[in-house]
Amino acid sequence: MFQSFDVTSTPEFGPARVAALRAGFDSLGIDAFLVPRADEFQGEYVPASAERLSWLTGFTGSAGIALILRDRALVFVDGRYVTQLAEQVDADVFTSGDLVGEPPHLWIERHAAKGLRLGIDPWLHTGAEVRKLEKALAAIGGTLIVLKDNPLDPLWTDRPEPPLGRVRIQHSDHAGRLATDKIAMIAETAVKAGAAAVLLTEPSSIAWTFNLRGADVPHTPHPLARGIIHADGSAEIFLDKRKTGIEEEAYLTQMAQILPPSRFEDRVAALAASGVSLMLDPDHAPFALAERIRSEGGTVVEADDPARLPRAVKNEAELAGSTRAHLQDGAAMVEFLAWLDAQKPGSVTEIAATTELESFRRTVGERMQNPLRDISFDTIAGAGGHGAVIHYRVTDKTDQPLAAGSLFLIDSGGQYVNGTTDITRTVAIGPVGEEEKRFFTLVLKGMIAISTARFPKGTRGVDLDPLARIALWKAGADYAHGTGHGVGSYLSVHEGPQRISRAGMQELLPGMILSNEPGYYRPGQFGIRIENLIHVLPPAPIEGGDAPMLGFATLTFCPIDRRLIVTALLTEEERRWIDAYHAETREKLTPLIEDASARAWLEAATQPL
Amino acid sequence: MFQSFDVTSTPEFGPARVAALRAGFDSLGIDAFLVPRADEFQGEYVPASAERLSWLTGFTGSAGIALILRDRALVFVDGRYVTQLAEQVDADVFTSGDLVGEPPHLWIERHAAKGLRLGIDPWLHTGAEVRKLEKALAAIGGTLIVLKDNPLDPLWTDRPEPPLGRVRIQHSDHAGRLATDKIAMIAETAVKAGAAAVLLTEPSSIAWTFNLRGADVPHTPHPLARGIIHADGSAEIFLDKRKTGIEEEAYLTQMAQILPPSRFEDRVAALAASGVSLMLDPDHAPFALAERIRSEGGTVVEADDPARLPRAVKNEAELAGSTRAHLQDGAAMVEFLAWLDAQKPGSVTEIAATTELESFRRTVGERMQNPLRDISFDTIAGAGGHGAVIHYRVTDKTDQPLAAGSLFLIDSGGQYVNGTTDITRTVAIGPVGEEEKRFFTLVLKGMIAISTARFPKGTRGVDLDPLARIALWKAGADYAHGTGHGVGSYLSVHEGPQRISRAGMQELLPGMILSNEPGYYRPGQFGIRIENLIHVLPPAPIEGGDAPMLGFATLTFCPIDRRLIVTALLTEEERRWIDAYHAETREKLTPLIEDASARAWLEAATQPL
Repeated sequence: MFQSFDVTSTPEFGPARVAALRAGFDSLGIDAFLVPRADEFQGEYVPASAERLSWLTGFTGSAGIALILRDRALVFVDGRYVTQLAEQVDADVFTSGDLVGEPPHLWIERHAAKGLRLGIDPWLHTGAEVRKLEKALAAIGGTLIVLKDNPLDPLWTDRPEPPLGRVRIQHSDHAGRLATDKIAMIAETAVKAGAAAVLLTEPSSIAWTFNLRGADVPHTPHPLARGIIHADGSAEIFLDKRKTGIEEEAYLTQMAQILPPSRFEDRVAALAASGVSLMLDPDHAPFALAERIRSEGGTVVEADDPARLPRAVKNEAELAGSTRAHLQDGAAMVEFLAWLDAQKPGSVTEIAATTELESFRRTVGERMQNPLRDISFDTIAGAGGHGAVIHYRVTDKTDQPLAAGSLFLIDSGGQYVNGTTDITRTVAIGPVGEEEKRFFTLVLKGMIAISTARFPKGTRGVDLDPLARIALWKAGADYAHGTGHGVGSYLSVHEGPQRISRAGMQELLPGMILSNEPGYYRPGQFGIRIENLIHVLPPAPIEGGDAPMLGFATLTFCPIDRRLIVTALLTEEERRWIDAYHAETREKLTPLIEDASARAWLEAATQPL
Repeated sequence: MFQSFDVTSTPEFGPARVAALRAGFDSLGIDAFLVPRADEFQGEYVPASAERLSWLTGFTGSAGIALILRDRALVFVDGRYVTQLAEQVDADVFTSGDLVGEPPHLWIERHAAKGLRLGIDPWLHTGAEVRKLEKALAAIGGTLIVLKDNPLDPLWTDRPEPPLGRVRIQHSDHAGRLATDKIAMIAETAVKAGAAAVLLTEPSSIAWTFNLRGADVPHTPHPLARGIIHADGSAEIFLDKRKTGIEEEAYLTQMAQILPPSRFEDRVAALAASGVSLMLDPDHAPFALAERIRSEGGTVVEADDPARLPRAVKNEAELAGSTRAHLQDGAAMVEFLAWLDAQKPGSVTEIAATTELESFRRTVGERMQNPLRDISFDTIAGAGGHGAVIHYRVTDKTDQPLAAGSLFLIDSGGQYVNGTTDITRTVAIGPVGEEEKRFFTLVLKGMIAISTARFPKGTRGVDLDPLARIALWKAGADYAHGTGHGVGSYLSVHEGPQRISRAGMQELLPGMILSNEPGYYRPGQFGIRIENLIHVLPPAPIEGGDAPMLGFATLTFCPIDRRLIVTALLTEEERRWIDAYHAETREKLTPLIEDASARAWLEAATQPL
């Protein structure tokens, strides 16, 4: 299993650890210290060796930050994690902050004592974050104290070693473009910006640029590594050689010097000391780096990570790979859903369903000779009220049966060498109520609105997001998450800069892969989410129109539970879309399914409405 | 008539004037000079005495900026004015720039010679604009030269005197809130920001705060004046006393010291010299002001103009007034449309229609004892292909008959003491083609989508804009303007910060008035726009929903041409909306219309589809 159901933290250690941390405040000259979930790579998943937030507080969510003051301690989380936070931390010590509405810098500006001296570990915060903190501190006459060492680390005596996940070459059949070509493109951006080199600080940018994949963190196959691409086209990769085999080392040596990760900072400092300009992305690079460059006399050129947008715009090979990965994944989903439908309501638990689904993904992967390399994130398997917890992670403690008359929401994905998948289906366990069906249909309307949208060049994700919500809004409902996130090619299942949300200011470009996942959540009762991955199609003419319009093609094929659709609430166009989608699903997946009963289930599940 | 159809400029003077301007470059130490359309009040309409751009170039559009370099001269305009620019300026001297895609600062960064010394008149540019210019100049090693006097003014020998439009008190029955109360509220924002005073630089903010209206510029009844509101609640208004009568002077003296406009800068300088902080809005205040404050040793506190948001959020009296103004205006529109329908196709010209419409507005105003004070902007009356020119202004030169088989687009509005109106109707002149009807219906679908939208607290204009476009996008069409702008209360017909557009980042708040005006334009053939004004309703519960949702109420009542609607393209919900809207229009307007034939026309025009 790629997923564990263990309860991985307890609230009991937090108080003593916070006290120990505070005991060092005086000697450090600080009144407060920030402990973000992020590590120095700013990724969504961090290795066990960087789980500082969970070690300190007990909170294990994928986003959050603790602000430890002398007299109080806050853990800032978003709406997804409010309930989880309450369960995982000691309420006598920790109170919760609102990561979205009033993040730490705003909290400090509004509530902190005047003159606050705030300590940070500059490797754990981006330049953009530090700017906000500095502004907030200025407003209250406070000071930012940039610490040399993280005061938490010496207290963490049983801290695990950093990971040494095996690195593999991502073959150009899958990557669709040679690493040497990507390095040359990045070197060109340095030339254009008048910089001596580009610092690649995001592991996914290293993975994409060098056509490498790694295994350092769960579910995201990028190696924790850094790179420097010089304007002359030469490159350095800072990667522990224990992660490579002979083949990978030989491959990398052709295009880059391989140096130990510990050398990265000194190498940047040496370049800076020669007085050159170095390009980095202030939204993603650790603040420590820009600080060091400036202190050594170099110049920081702030620019978007040059790998970020090209990585988001998939090429033909990547789209073809993703298409195949999704059909395979769809076959596994169909086998799973067919199996689930054959079980007696109440006889399957959330963990059993999760385990079974991973097992189907593995079996289909073996059969199709394209093994499941990992799941792309911890499966969210919420029965009944658990479905309303947007990022629910089932544990041995919370596990419950899929009861008759309830909805079961299952959001999961696989990592295959040719693509990353992410799919949510919400299914009826036996006959369910009319309210569940009505909201399921409203969510579906939103999902179809995105699937069928056409839009002019220049349209951003923010310009499509409301199409997915308006049917719910008119019913007095909404969902507290974005409609879609970018997805990598055998990389992170959450990839920027593309997204469909209130904050989606990136223009949607042909080749981008996004999720399309509106939802509805009734706390304590049920949760609904329907999610397909889609990719942006190039502009194509429309008969009788003036300008070619972009649109989406669907990657995910898997039946949407017809038993939950109130046909009367659909427009003719929406009904046609569902029927066509199901017909295509049947046609594409039937040949991939061996089991006769699963084929029969697929046949029935894809009948016209 | 409040509108003239004269051709008000010719291209012939531009070359000599540009040459004269350039002749001064050496002695000023500049290589280029910017001539914006804006005057020192940054308003949409400028008095004749501030028409520098048109004096220099011949271009009379409502938005634009000229960049006069030594060897070339550019006039930057947006898509609305490309054709007009070509007609109005001498192409041997002026080339056109793209005000939206590549505004002056971007043009300078990309195309200007290294080391450019750019002169500006600091009263004609906001602080935010100057920041962009400085950044662009830094990138090319250039310098911004802030000139003390505008070098164009001495050349403009026949420059008209500044206007002395009569100021009137806007009675609190209409304003709904006492000026003293508004002054206290603004003083409070100064206290909160730790500023000694707030500088009110926008004439509409003066008008709103002091409950005054003026007549200095066409169509927008605000006086060109400035104000200072001190933290202690005392106020100064910088207003030429020749604009006031005894009553207004007595009224103003109760709450403020009246000072001549020429004293404003010195007064600000004196305050700054005492070392205090002064609050101003960098997006709207002239750069000269912030410069002067800093040079005198004061501190600039940058903040939104504190009158801006409260002005946008209309109170009950303002909404009630606007509702009545719109019914009256709707009655005038119905009489006009009934008249138009009775004319033989081809017998009425654009000018005749415009004149007739103003005449109906006057007559109805007299009858209802609420006279038309002004039109709210120059009527856009475009027959056939002229309808596709988004901001078409008919002149004696361009006037043409409303031909049989064509569409006629008429966008107009009135200024009444109780409200500002803005309405567009597109009507069939005799039988028209299927293509016109199809696109009319698609535009209508967008307009209904906004009218019927419900949305949660926090929704911004950008989050609704796509709802008005998706039907057009799916047909391969779009419109190159926002869906809606804010509208003042007997003030500017284009009022910020509220808007429904790609750039609409302001949260929509109950009480805001906006236009709802999607369109479609086929160059050279026809133009379609359907526009109602709407106001934001407070959150209200929806049966079966979780959260109360905001929505819109319609202010504008006037039939939408049923002959142009393809019912088969409407959803059931859309059809119901149209029928209900027409029923309400009939019910509300019939009692206001005296003429029997107009009443009969209304009866027929509002029948269910």
